[in-house]
Amino acid sequence: MRSESRLIRWICWIVVVAALFFLGFMIGWFAKPSHPNTPEDRDSSIYLREFLDEMQSDKIREHLRKFTRLPHLAGTEQNLKYAVQIKTEWLAFGLDSVEMVPYDVLLSYPNETQPNYISIVDQHGTEIFNTSFAEPLPEGYEDISNIVPPYSAFSAKGQPEGDLVYVNYGRTEDFLQLEREMDINVTGKIVIVRYGKIFRGNKVKNAILAGAQGIIMFSDPADYWATGVQPYPDGWNLPGGGAQRGNVLNLNGAGDPLTPGYPAKEYTYRFKLEDAVGLPKIPVHPIGFHDAVHLLKNMGGQIPPNNWKGALNISYRIGPGFTNDFRSQKVRMNIYTNNKVSRIYNVIGRIRGALEPDRYVILGGHRDAWVFGGIDPMSGAAVVHEMVRSAGKLLSKGWRPRRTIIFASWDAEEFGLQGSTEWAEENAKLLQERAVAYINADSAIEGMYTLRVDCTPSLHTLVYDITKQIASPEEGEEGVSLYESWHKRDNWTNDRDAPRISKLGSGSDFEAYFIRLGIAAGRARYTKNKNTERYSSYPVYHSVYETFEIVEKFYDPSFKRLRVVAQVRGSLVFQLADSKILPLNLNEYANSLSKYAQSIARLAQNHMDEMRTYNVSFDSLFSAVENFTLAASGFHERLQDLNKADSLQVRAMNDQLMYLERAFIDPLGLPGRPFYRHVIFAPSSHNKYAGESFPGIYDALFDIENSPDPEKSWDEVKRQISIAAFTVHAAAMTLTRPA
Amino acid sequence: MRSESRLIRWICWIVVVAALFFLGFMIGWFAKPSHPNTPEDRDSSIYLREFLDEMQSDKIREHLRKFTRLPHLAGTEQNLKYAVQIKTEWLAFGLDSVEMVPYDVLLSYPNETQPNYISIVDQHGTEIFNTSFAEPLPEGYEDISNIVPPYSAFSAKGQPEGDLVYVNYGRTEDFLQLEREMDINVTGKIVIVRYGKIFRGNKVKNAILAGAQGIIMFSDPADYWATGVQPYPDGWNLPGGGAQRGNVLNLNGAGDPLTPGYPAKEYTYRFKLEDAVGLPKIPVHPIGFHDAVHLLKNMGGQIPPNNWKGALNISYRIGPGFTNDFRSQKVRMNIYTNNKVSRIYNVIGRIRGALEPDRYVILGGHRDAWVFGGIDPMSGAAVVHEMVRSAGKLLSKGWRPRRTIIFASWDAEEFGLQGSTEWAEENAKLLQERAVAYINADSAIEGMYTLRVDCTPSLHTLVYDITKQIASPEEGEEGVSLYESWHKRDNWTNDRDAPRISKLGSGSDFEAYFIRLGIAAGRARYTKNKNTERYSSYPVYHSVYETFEIVEKFYDPSFKRLRVVAQVRGSLVFQLADSKILPLNLNEYANSLSKYAQSIARLAQNHMDEMRTYNVSFDSLFSAVENFTLAASGFHERLQDLNKADSLQVRAMNDQLMYLERAFIDPLGLPGRPFYRHVIFAPSSHNKYAGESFPGIYDALFDIENSPDPEKSWDEVKRQISIAAFTVHAAAMTLTRPA
Repeated sequence: MRSESRLIRWICWIVVVAALFFLGFMIGWFAKPSHPNTPEDRDSSIYLREFLDEMQSDKIREHLRKFTRLPHLAGTEQNLKYAVQIKTEWLAFGLDSVEMVPYDVLLSYPNETQPNYISIVDQHGTEIFNTSFAEPLPEGYEDISNIVPPYSAFSAKGQPEGDLVYVNYGRTEDFLQLEREMDINVTGKIVIVRYGKIFRGNKVKNAILAGAQGIIMFSDPADYWATGVQPYPDGWNLPGGGAQRGNVLNLNGAGDPLTPGYPAKEYTYRFKLEDAVGLPKIPVHPIGFHDAVHLLKNMGGQIPPNNWKGALNISYRIGPGFTNDFRSQKVRMNIYTNNKVSRIYNVIGRIRGALEPDRYVILGGHRDAWVFGGIDPMSGAAVVHEMVRSAGKLLSKGWRPRRTIIFASWDAEEFGLQGSTEWAEENAKLLQERAVAYINADSAIEGMYTLRVDCTPSLHTLVYDITKQIASPEEGEEGVSLYESWHKRDNWTNDRDAPRISKLGSGSDFEAYFIRLGIAAGRARYTKNKNTERYSSYPVYHSVYETFEIVEKFYDPSFKRLRVVAQVRGSLVFQLADSKILPLNLNEYANSLSKYAQSIARLAQNHMDEMRTYNVSFDSLFSAVENFTLAASGFHERLQDLNKADSLQVRAMNDQLMYLERAFIDPLGLPGRPFYRHVIFAPSSHNKYAGESFPGIYDALFDIENSPDPEKSWDEVKRQISIAAFTVHAAAMTLTRPA
Repeated sequence: MRSESRLIRWICWIVVVAALFFLGFMIGWFAKPSHPNTPEDRDSSIYLREFLDEMQSDKIREHLRKFTRLPHLAGTEQNLKYAVQIKTEWLAFGLDSVEMVPYDVLLSYPNETQPNYISIVDQHGTEIFNTSFAEPLPEGYEDISNIVPPYSAFSAKGQPEGDLVYVNYGRTEDFLQLEREMDINVTGKIVIVRYGKIFRGNKVKNAILAGAQGIIMFSDPADYWATGVQPYPDGWNLPGGGAQRGNVLNLNGAGDPLTPGYPAKEYTYRFKLEDAVGLPKIPVHPIGFHDAVHLLKNMGGQIPPNNWKGALNISYRIGPGFTNDFRSQKVRMNIYTNNKVSRIYNVIGRIRGALEPDRYVILGGHRDAWVFGGIDPMSGAAVVHEMVRSAGKLLSKGWRPRRTIIFASWDAEEFGLQGSTEWAEENAKLLQERAVAYINADSAIEGMYTLRVDCTPSLHTLVYDITKQIASPEEGEEGVSLYESWHKRDNWTNDRDAPRISKLGSGSDFEAYFIRLGIAAGRARYTKNKNTERYSSYPVYHSVYETFEIVEKFYDPSFKRLRVVAQVRGSLVFQLADSKILPLNLNEYANSLSKYAQSIARLAQNHMDEMRTYNVSFDSLFSAVENFTLAASGFHERLQDLNKADSLQVRAMNDQLMYLERAFIDPLGLPGRPFYRHVIFAPSSHNKYAGESFPGIYDALFDIENSPDPEKSWDEVKRQISIAAFTVHAAAMTLTRPA
């Protein structure tokens, strides 16, 4: 071989080798993805399945048993002990961190040496009948101490004496009817009303506005007794000796009455008691129906309309005072309840997010109970505990959610949502910027019929999606999804063919997060059949009979319903924390806004002439809603086209989703209620329109109906429509911009 | 060759080929970076240099010439024409979008058929002296129409008649001195005060509180005349016939007086005039010193203390009324000014951010002028115009900033910051979530001495950095940096050896962005030597003599000073929009907070005994500041270690930097002032403490000094300290969390 030809061959070789190498290099270079492909979505759904499957009925039963042995009222030693235990167990379950967060807030307790009671006194002032000091204790709990007797927390002290007037449920319309149709003035009288229909604090407010010097609330069997059911312990009805505890504040979202707007820390300025928010100025007391019969049976005065009559075997006369034979007898309230600044403890656990630790999904529910809290709140707390255990298991398998999850065990919910509100106040700036959603975890069960979900409209779709992945807990429904089971039992008929989802109201710990801060929120529990079961909440609500046994024997013997609630709440938290794109549907928000706007406009049509006179129109609101609807659908179209590998773009669109709920917050608040700031969802000031959206407009319309100055009142309606229209436009803008 | 050996050779071949290919593939795979390395920081600084170099003095001169030919008061045709022209030119310069954004707000104009003036009337009611209806027109402008005569915008109408009382500058302390030391009650009197020291609206408020039925403000040469300088047109002093226009509102950040809190759109509810925010209830009028002499020279009553005496050749007696010889003469104000809802137009231009379009850096300054606006605001608007032109040039070279830049030409600033405030109201939700910083661009020059910068503490470092990159505009300072030139002229002596940077006060368009929304903000302009030039603002301020020529002949003949201001404002905007890590220094914020806390605690020490009696302490505030200081330094340490290739981590830390300023916002606002919400930086309600930080505490301390109920007042001090401590703690928490 000539060296020349060898050289050529070598050159060929080198060229071939280089070409091959180059080819390999190029293929290698281009084969490697620029944006590492994350198989996270598929992994996430596998982990979700494991998370849900890990939750066990027996464990929930154990948790519930453990945390309902002793009374644990807010501010007591025992509630602190449970807090410490929860902290210890959450850490053992594997959370990244758990801390106790104390606040010093205003609570209220009966005087330990002077019991509260109500008397009938004769003409000599002698007490000839006294209501019971306490409820008869349920079997097995006879030796338990520290059971607080039924009382109205934050009642004023005093011994008012006077004639009784019966005012049905104590609603605005009841007092109006009393004044206008029955011509009875309650100034200086003691009002007696039955529990139910509206929040007890509003009954007290109405009684004060009407001039009463005291108010008694009783549980009427018509409202706290299910037909065909035995009283506890043989069934789940309220015994005649049972009574409903509860606070009688009118806080409107302020939290601790002494530190509105700011967390109750050691350095915080406290109002004087006379400047405290929402304390009633008159004595208030709750009784059961055994006691109520004694107060009511001899009452004189008019016979009331039928819808004022309860189910006791008496004639429900209005008064004032007793019939002729008993005319000289009066009623005296003896109330010695004390307000007291007390230390409360939230327990806050965290799982740090893997990719977006600065985005928070919060699961919060309270721990404090009036007595044992068998249903309220421990059925919910047990579910949370099981969710934490299951999440811990997942962590040990290597999972970590995209975003941070915060678990909260709130204190002093029963005293006005104080634990949750103080924490929201302390963390307001963080939450405003970082909170994706708040899922509430109060009582997980209030009936045995089907699922109940209340949430912000953007969560509708997620709720439907997840309930399709969960099995029905009902006997004989093997292979049926929770969605189907729920759909069958509670269809949304008029609105759409799907299970009913309601608006979030108020009265549980989501208030500060949803109504004050504008964080997307929802809650889920098992509920009764509201078409056939017409009692308020559940019969033993806030009585000593809310025990572990009432759940175990009647509400959920298999603990499968509680498990399903755990799975629903758990799926919500999991998906919100782990989905690459936040599972919020703004088209649903648009639909809801449109319905709400139509509904308020329809109501206003009762005043067509005046609306013409004062030039009032809902057009601007409708046009804002239309604008929002277009913005939402445009946004979701763009979301489809999003390059999911571009983490900044994903983050930016998630931010738009997250902040959408925030856009409905008006920093100025609703008129006179600075802590109710959600323009769409806040409780109306008037129970007549409770549950309606656009509370500012409803409140203004209510005033129309009761105002001496129509021009001024219609002006306020116009102002409120304008605020609503602006807010909806502004929310739309957050979707169409940037840039 | 045997076929076997050929096979082996082939196999060898294939193995070698495969191995080579594999080697190439592997090298290719690993050679490619997982996170593409972005040379953006180096590119960015090259583009910044080009951006600054592109700005030209001659162009600024041209822009200023162009936009000062005609009067362009807010709400007039000409101001709309300039808006259209600006829009057209900004589009031509290359902005991505430019829009006109209209609002219908309350403005105020003199009655065109009934001029405003002030008379001296004799005992028969005959007007024996009238003040001039207008200022003598400057040369070259004699034929210009639509020059609005000097007036006080939003003055009440009326013809009050009475005795004059001279109250120096009309400050709180002046009125107190008048009442307490001079024992003079101004109820029913007409007050005459000199311009200067405080905002004219506060003079009017003080006069109303004191019971006056009218107020006249004059420009005293002591306050509007520089020694050794000729009056315009031979120099830049205020001629005796010139007077200062200006609004006399007390808006406290409300924007349009008829739509506080909401943008003045077509659907927006408007208050009735009697409910409007901040309108004075008495007539108000401004005059020059030629006219003032006639009103003042015959006044009787006491001779005032020396610091009440101006530079006119009169004795500055206090009154009430004239001396004996003229006792029967009274003063009558004739004010016919009308309030009128008028359309105003902001011009909003945008450069869409390349990577974070949902982060905004805003450069905003007003366009409306009292007359020609030669200095206020067009020296600033010309600078903005040149910045836009230069940014457009950069865009054409392929540059695009990381974040979105928004350029705003505000309308109706002179009527109470209305254009900027309405836009902030309309976009509040977007801005709250997305605005990185707001740079203000009002008048770019008010003196010929050196640079003046007012900004939030976190911008200090950036301001120093950029001024080191810019050349001094002063003659004889070739090769000297702006930083050095500025440092030499205005050292911060007591605080540190660096050029002085002041707090942002109030009174220009940054208010809604900084004080209401909590967006980091700053401003820069060229200023006088405040040690030697003691006149207020600049002499011709708000007079017809603010022409193009006054800038060209006196303030900046080379237009190099304006160019330097353009470069400073431009660098701020550029760096904030284009730096990967936001150039905000929170350690500087900590330093400043510490100084402010010390300063208020020092003031309070004047009341040691009472503080002990009422148990008042600043400890909680100091401990909060300490906490913040640690949080800030810890944050900046972590920032050092940040993996800048991780775009989610970069975004998260930038969010913490961005939202830090937001953390100082209290949604409840300062007491009685819902739109002043910055707990650290808002104007005090009392001019005595203007310029101090922690306005809530200062206001409460002021009330101590003037209150009949010390316990209640000290209680408010405690409350304000507690709010300040909470806010600083909460701000610290945004740095230490997540998670």
